[in-house]
Amino acid sequence: MRSLLTCLVAVLVAACVRGDRYHPADPGSRAAAATVVNRAETSANYWAQEAQSAINARLAHKESVKKARNVVMFLGDGMSVPTLAAARTLLGQRRGHTGEETKLHFETFPTVGLVKTYCVNAQIADSACTATAYLCGVKTTYGAIGVNAEVPRRGCEESTDASRHVESIADWALADGRDAGIVTTTRITHASPAGVYAKVAERDWEHNKAVEDHGYDTDRCPDIAHQLVHKHPGNKLKVIFGGGRRNFIPTDVQDEEGDFGRRTDNRNLIQEWLQDKEDRKVTNMFIWNREQLMSLDDDLPEYILGLFESSHLQYNMQANATTEPTLTELTEIAIRSLSRNEKGFFLFVEGGRIDHAHHDNFVELALDETLEMDKAVERAAELLSEDDSLIVVTADHAHVMAFNGYSRRGHDILGPSRDLDEKGVPYMTLSYTNGPGFRAHVNGVRPNVTAESDYRSLEWEAHVDVPLEDETHGGDDVAVFARGPHHSMFTGLYEQSQLPHLMAYAACIGPGRHACSAATHALAQPVLLLTLFVLLISLFQQ
Amino acid sequence: MRSLLTCLVAVLVAACVRGDRYHPADPGSRAAAATVVNRAETSANYWAQEAQSAINARLAHKESVKKARNVVMFLGDGMSVPTLAAARTLLGQRRGHTGEETKLHFETFPTVGLVKTYCVNAQIADSACTATAYLCGVKTTYGAIGVNAEVPRRGCEESTDASRHVESIADWALADGRDAGIVTTTRITHASPAGVYAKVAERDWEHNKAVEDHGYDTDRCPDIAHQLVHKHPGNKLKVIFGGGRRNFIPTDVQDEEGDFGRRTDNRNLIQEWLQDKEDRKVTNMFIWNREQLMSLDDDLPEYILGLFESSHLQYNMQANATTEPTLTELTEIAIRSLSRNEKGFFLFVEGGRIDHAHHDNFVELALDETLEMDKAVERAAELLSEDDSLIVVTADHAHVMAFNGYSRRGHDILGPSRDLDEKGVPYMTLSYTNGPGFRAHVNGVRPNVTAESDYRSLEWEAHVDVPLEDETHGGDDVAVFARGPHHSMFTGLYEQSQLPHLMAYAACIGPGRHACSAATHALAQPVLLLTLFVLLISLFQQ
Repeated sequence: MRSLLTCLVAVLVAACVRGDRYHPADPGSRAAAATVVNRAETSANYWAQEAQSAINARLAHKESVKKARNVVMFLGDGMSVPTLAAARTLLGQRRGHTGEETKLHFETFPTVGLVKTYCVNAQIADSACTATAYLCGVKTTYGAIGVNAEVPRRGCEESTDASRHVESIADWALADGRDAGIVTTTRITHASPAGVYAKVAERDWEHNKAVEDHGYDTDRCPDIAHQLVHKHPGNKLKVIFGGGRRNFIPTDVQDEEGDFGRRTDNRNLIQEWLQDKEDRKVTNMFIWNREQLMSLDDDLPEYILGLFESSHLQYNMQANATTEPTLTELTEIAIRSLSRNEKGFFLFVEGGRIDHAHHDNFVELALDETLEMDKAVERAAELLSEDDSLIVVTADHAHVMAFNGYSRRGHDILGPSRDLDEKGVPYMTLSYTNGPGFRAHVNGVRPNVTAESDYRSLEWEAHVDVPLEDETHGGDDVAVFARGPHHSMFTGLYEQSQLPHLMAYAACIGPGRHACSAATHALAQPVLLLTLFVLLISLFQQ
Repeated sequence: MRSLLTCLVAVLVAACVRGDRYHPADPGSRAAAATVVNRAETSANYWAQEAQSAINARLAHKESVKKARNVVMFLGDGMSVPTLAAARTLLGQRRGHTGEETKLHFETFPTVGLVKTYCVNAQIADSACTATAYLCGVKTTYGAIGVNAEVPRRGCEESTDASRHVESIADWALADGRDAGIVTTTRITHASPAGVYAKVAERDWEHNKAVEDHGYDTDRCPDIAHQLVHKHPGNKLKVIFGGGRRNFIPTDVQDEEGDFGRRTDNRNLIQEWLQDKEDRKVTNMFIWNREQLMSLDDDLPEYILGLFESSHLQYNMQANATTEPTLTELTEIAIRSLSRNEKGFFLFVEGGRIDHAHHDNFVELALDETLEMDKAVERAAELLSEDDSLIVVTADHAHVMAFNGYSRRGHDILGPSRDLDEKGVPYMTLSYTNGPGFRAHVNGVRPNVTAESDYRSLEWEAHVDVPLEDETHGGDDVAVFARGPHHSMFTGLYEQSQLPHLMAYAACIGPGRHACSAATHALAQPVLLLTLFVLLISLFQQ
């Protein structure tokens, strides 16, 4: 208690004196909330023990060298490195702690890496070319999916040459007799999930009209929804969960929640999907709400198509919890369904709206969607054994949210910094360099955003420097977290396009090098040595 | 050539059409420079081979399980994750390439980790409490060095209790009979290098007057320069290279370049350092310029004190190359000197002015200082064997520089984005959320910074949202890169304070668990199995 008091007094004193030019004394004491410091942390031994426990845990951990029967890839769309620290702090603070010391579930995974996200013609990438990298193992053109960079964006003709198509890791899994599935919170035809199955020169060609609007023929260049239903590997996916019904039904047809479709070719692709499964004599089901999903638990059809919204799923914090499934619920049912294949499966799970919230400068929603994905990762990790199931968590690209200032420990991560700007105006701990949250200065001074009546609301736009309709992506690297067989292969700093090759290595699928054959080599040496040894002993004893 | 042309045409077309709400079509074609795309990258095979080569290299790489005789820790002060991608792109562009595909030397290290930088009372850390974490293995109070968090900032009295002092990894190395040294581009008494040797409640107490200005007695609380010269382990350091002569000499004494000192106790600590070495009958030398440094090469004294500036060393791009040594030169001489101890050494090398440049919104200087540190890493890696020398590269904390927009591949990393803001005004690819680069709006519109005549100069301040005298640190995680014995221990996401414990583990020094004993345990199992096997065979054959 005494040291806590001394600490507090010292901070108040320190706040009055300006120190080193670059590094202020502790930030001011304006904020009402007192920092809760964990007393145990003031002991040096606390940190020494924390480190020694971690060293012991690392050494005790045995990496599985088995084949990864199952691979689950989690993709936090736009989940930049700064998003991680902010999200974990929010998680801890929601639990009543200071927050910074918290770890997301996937942050406990044994291996971390960093990947470079640029695309062939883009310094700062989009979700289409990056999906081609982390799902098909090939960097390509900004805006293109499942094709190499010989195809320019919207190059319909160029994309018809099958030699320019690239397979995804779902293709490789299916070719090995495993199953594959997709779960996302975005439209199922959105860039990231489309990376699993589409070969398309333009990410926006989600329905036929979008292709035709650019002057192309959908016979030559089928739209993404059509590819999902009728092309390999989309039509082989056992689980398809996401949003985006509108891209599957005609403009004059209303879906189950009253929204009209976007298709002008008079086709109902949901019906066609069902018919295709009927023709193939496999059990199937289309679902569109949480109740249907939750009732599936005991009686899963072979193929499930779940489209839960006309467009993207709602943000978790804005969704009706009784009608909108969570990413965790979707992930759990997907894993239960795919686990029926004894050969294993590949599942792609996307927390896709982290990106959307960042684009709108909605900090809290971006962090909450990150936490929602983390819950889904935790559930997957509970359902799948570390021994035979590889889980990889990463992002496609960064964003330009920064974690500002010098706030004290435990300071509200969603609130203003304890510091004020040079003119005495507050600024937020989390803000952006650009985006819609632009405010004009008044007489050369930034407006006080904390005086805005809605500044704690979910759709409040954090302040920015550069006015843009949508906040932009960042060109910085994103993190990779891996658990399960051969996880240590995922460390280092490398091209994002290595990810599916690394997963395929661990799972022993696809055209590249496999862990299974490598493991044989690794075993060969001790066996050989032992054989020689036995021979020697025998000779000696004769 | 044809596909390149198709690409360019497609980009021009794409620039005219606005696509998906969040993700623009390719950014506009305003920038004059054409993007140079590597034709080979348009082939899917290029990326598959890139990945397969990387997998083969990972599998071929054998991690040394020897004791790390030597440990060199490189610290890029303020070298955030976004700084890495920007710096490598600049490096590649200086070499005439697109840039993004480049790797810094330390980015080729086999292991990457991420560390959490918060301190006991700070959500966003400074360089003092982080130095205590990454050098002494203990998180502490913002602004304090080498003491635990029972000591409040500027708590002179509290800091006199030796039970609150914490040892650094240099202490551990010296206790094992190894040598230790420091190289930095900042004042040698600045927070980061002081983490190696000082126990002090206030980072600003670099000379006696700073202590006295806060009302304390230097007998109770000696200043940092004094501790370096007269206290353990500072007085045992064989190599001390940096800036900061002013903190070692009196206010009425001019140093070799005409600058007055800061000490008011009439002491010349450089003379005292020399006298101390004379008293201990060890060869010694004080140097202050590059010529002296370079002439040392063949005839190194046992102890060298090199103070090359009154304050910090100059930025590499602004320094006189004939009089100011580079970080690489300093590092090389330090390694040559310390390598004379057959037991090995610990060397701390800091690229300390990345941080300063960021604080001033000087993007190019921040990136160039990062590249200078990378050169020093490369030289160290050439001089030291991967088999017995551990090299760890990390940062103390992040900054709030963002890598903005959707510029095309190879776009000038130091220039404006190809995009314009909503009002048609340019913004820079690299800019900050806060700092001195604030510009007031004119009629609600940001000024066009590219119209400023000096906007390509080194000391041009990039634009920001929030006006602050100094740009702030960031609260996001920083990266760790490791090469040499036991490097794989450095992956994962963990507390920054684990770093010295991990280095000590690999080097088999300090009070924690050691790799040397662990290796014995690891060997025990096969030996035991073999013995049992031989026994069984013998029994069977009798």
